[in-house]
Amino acid sequence: MFMFEKPLGMVDTLPNLYEIKKKTRQAMTSTIEHWGFQFIETPTLEYYETVGVQSAILDQQLFKLLDQQGHTLVLRPDMTAPIARVAASKLYNTSYPLRLAYSANVFRAQQREGGRPAEFEQVGVELIGDGTTSADAETIALMIETLKQAGLENFKIAIGHIGFGNALFKEVLGNQERADVLRRFLYEKNYVGYREHVKNLPLSSIDKERLLNLLKLRGDIEKVVEAKEMISSQEAKNSLEEINQLWSALEAFQVTDYIKLDLNIVSHMSYYTGILYEVYADNVGFLIGNGGRYDHLFEKFNRAAPATGFGLHIDRIIEALNIEEEQNFHCVIYSQERRTEAIAHTTELRASEKKVVMQDISGIKDVDAFTKQFEEVVYFIGSKKEEL
Amino acid sequence: MFMFEKPLGMVDTLPNLYEIKKKTRQAMTSTIEHWGFQFIETPTLEYYETVGVQSAILDQQLFKLLDQQGHTLVLRPDMTAPIARVAASKLYNTSYPLRLAYSANVFRAQQREGGRPAEFEQVGVELIGDGTTSADAETIALMIETLKQAGLENFKIAIGHIGFGNALFKEVLGNQERADVLRRFLYEKNYVGYREHVKNLPLSSIDKERLLNLLKLRGDIEKVVEAKEMISSQEAKNSLEEINQLWSALEAFQVTDYIKLDLNIVSHMSYYTGILYEVYADNVGFLIGNGGRYDHLFEKFNRAAPATGFGLHIDRIIEALNIEEEQNFHCVIYSQERRTEAIAHTTELRASEKKVVMQDISGIKDVDAFTKQFEEVVYFIGSKKEEL
Repeated sequence: MFMFEKPLGMVDTLPNLYEIKKKTRQAMTSTIEHWGFQFIETPTLEYYETVGVQSAILDQQLFKLLDQQGHTLVLRPDMTAPIARVAASKLYNTSYPLRLAYSANVFRAQQREGGRPAEFEQVGVELIGDGTTSADAETIALMIETLKQAGLENFKIAIGHIGFGNALFKEVLGNQERADVLRRFLYEKNYVGYREHVKNLPLSSIDKERLLNLLKLRGDIEKVVEAKEMISSQEAKNSLEEINQLWSALEAFQVTDYIKLDLNIVSHMSYYTGILYEVYADNVGFLIGNGGRYDHLFEKFNRAAPATGFGLHIDRIIEALNIEEEQNFHCVIYSQERRTEAIAHTTELRASEKKVVMQDISGIKDVDAFTKQFEEVVYFIGSKKEEL
Repeated sequence: MFMFEKPLGMVDTLPNLYEIKKKTRQAMTSTIEHWGFQFIETPTLEYYETVGVQSAILDQQLFKLLDQQGHTLVLRPDMTAPIARVAASKLYNTSYPLRLAYSANVFRAQQREGGRPAEFEQVGVELIGDGTTSADAETIALMIETLKQAGLENFKIAIGHIGFGNALFKEVLGNQERADVLRRFLYEKNYVGYREHVKNLPLSSIDKERLLNLLKLRGDIEKVVEAKEMISSQEAKNSLEEINQLWSALEAFQVTDYIKLDLNIVSHMSYYTGILYEVYADNVGFLIGNGGRYDHLFEKFNRAAPATGFGLHIDRIIEALNIEEEQNFHCVIYSQERRTEAIAHTTELRASEKKVVMQDISGIKDVDAFTKQFEEVVYFIGSKKEEL
């Protein structure tokens, strides 16, 4: 093994990207703070039996280890379950609704080299204890404002409802196993596979048509009307009614330009329980965040409560922003006899908000190569004459 | 296991402390940036064979796990070795001296409950490729400025040199094994144990006296004169000469009020190679940071270079600062018909830099309990009359 190798999916963030990321994070977290959400930090390591099991992430994607007492630990795969743990314990006496936020690295083990990060930063919020669609609308509006403040303008949020597909599958398929197969296709956005599979199901052509029509329920909000005609169960009607309520709240926030409907969005496992959404940046086409309502998680932590929230993938946002930025540094090079002068000059430059390297010339091997990286270099060396 | 338990030594950072920590970190990192150091981020997980083995942390304190390819990984125990890896690979073409910085969590496994954190944040710098005492002085002066900008005023930096004790032990004891026993006592600051051990060594009373006198070399810089008289080897003389050079550079930085001499400081293993130091906050008495010169680490990463740096323990700095601070939040409570008004009012408040929760009244179970937490609450509910 070479000394400079890193584990699969692990990356270094070098100075220029670090600065861009810091500014982007600052813009995002500042917006979230102004919306009254409070940031917390939780440990990188949690017990597998508590947070690990309750996370929305597949077991095979968890980094696991044993502690010295023999318990299985996980590197947190997301922040939602740790925040539920804190809300249900340390913040037990804080009255709901509770607005919490985070900016933290999460971990997903990779099976093989696929260019996907095994560690990445998420910025997100959880609004706990409010079951109204106003809470969903608030988090979506906040997410939009957060992305705008980060500098992103061209993005879309596809909004769906877990209840609609579930109701359709129940009506048409009856059994849960068959529904899971179709949900899997939707989760993988494998619409061709979905179509093929539906065609081969032992169903009437009317029922097949209904399942295939589900794929058309992506686009403008008007598709809700089409959806309503496709299905008769109360569960499905309630889903669509919630989407209508959400829409009118989002209109009040004046953010509907960013919204489209997508009744094909599903979550793997039964994590999300209501409205759920995915965010895409137009120019890069990949998912930069997602969120939704999860009303069952808090029961597991003995403090039942409805909840909704989102997580944004900051590295992907930066990729979508496509910022090019170099940092500018000044340099003061001195010889030891003139150190005091050099310090005085450097201190003055730093006080004017400049970033200034102060370097003893006897510590440099190659002055030409070294000085090349600076915008401006001032010398205090040898005699007191000005250097030219 | 209770659902809200955390692994040994792991902590949650709740909103008030999070804010204090954020402001403190901001003050510290901003200072470091102005001194021309560039921040980088490295992965939480590294290979044991590379970074794990080269870290200054004891093997038994490493969190280890296996990846899916069967390699042993560690949660980074410090940032020095990861930074060496980056400097020797991705930054190979950047001319030395190189100034890098970090603000990152590091991990130390705990054997049993002892109240010590298993994960904590360090803010630090590494100055790579400059073997002069000017580099040591710069990092120490920067550390002092960083602590002052964080708001800390009462702290002391105890400065020593690994070479002095080593030379004394070589002169008096000859063998390495005996020296290691004494170094262990010094590392644990067990001066009573050191004295007892020296008394029982099969040495002349003059030699015992010399070993015991080492313990007196703590205090003002004038102790360097005493030290010089105790020992004749060139290695020891060079150490003291470096301390003198360092002192005069620190005088130019006008920071000697914060400095004392401590020729008893040692590092476990042979990690540090020259000047080394420890920082204590006066009011709490515990170590809040340390640093020193490590000229051998970079050889391991195939880019031999002298280097010096420090790491500060931000949680302990905050403990020493003893800040009490509550956040102030405003709240706008509305009913759905008046959502648009509520949004307009809230947006205005947020624009004036206030932190404002906007809450649908139908999402609140207990309005009295909920509103108690806010500095100011405005209602937009029901009819258009003003609420009293």
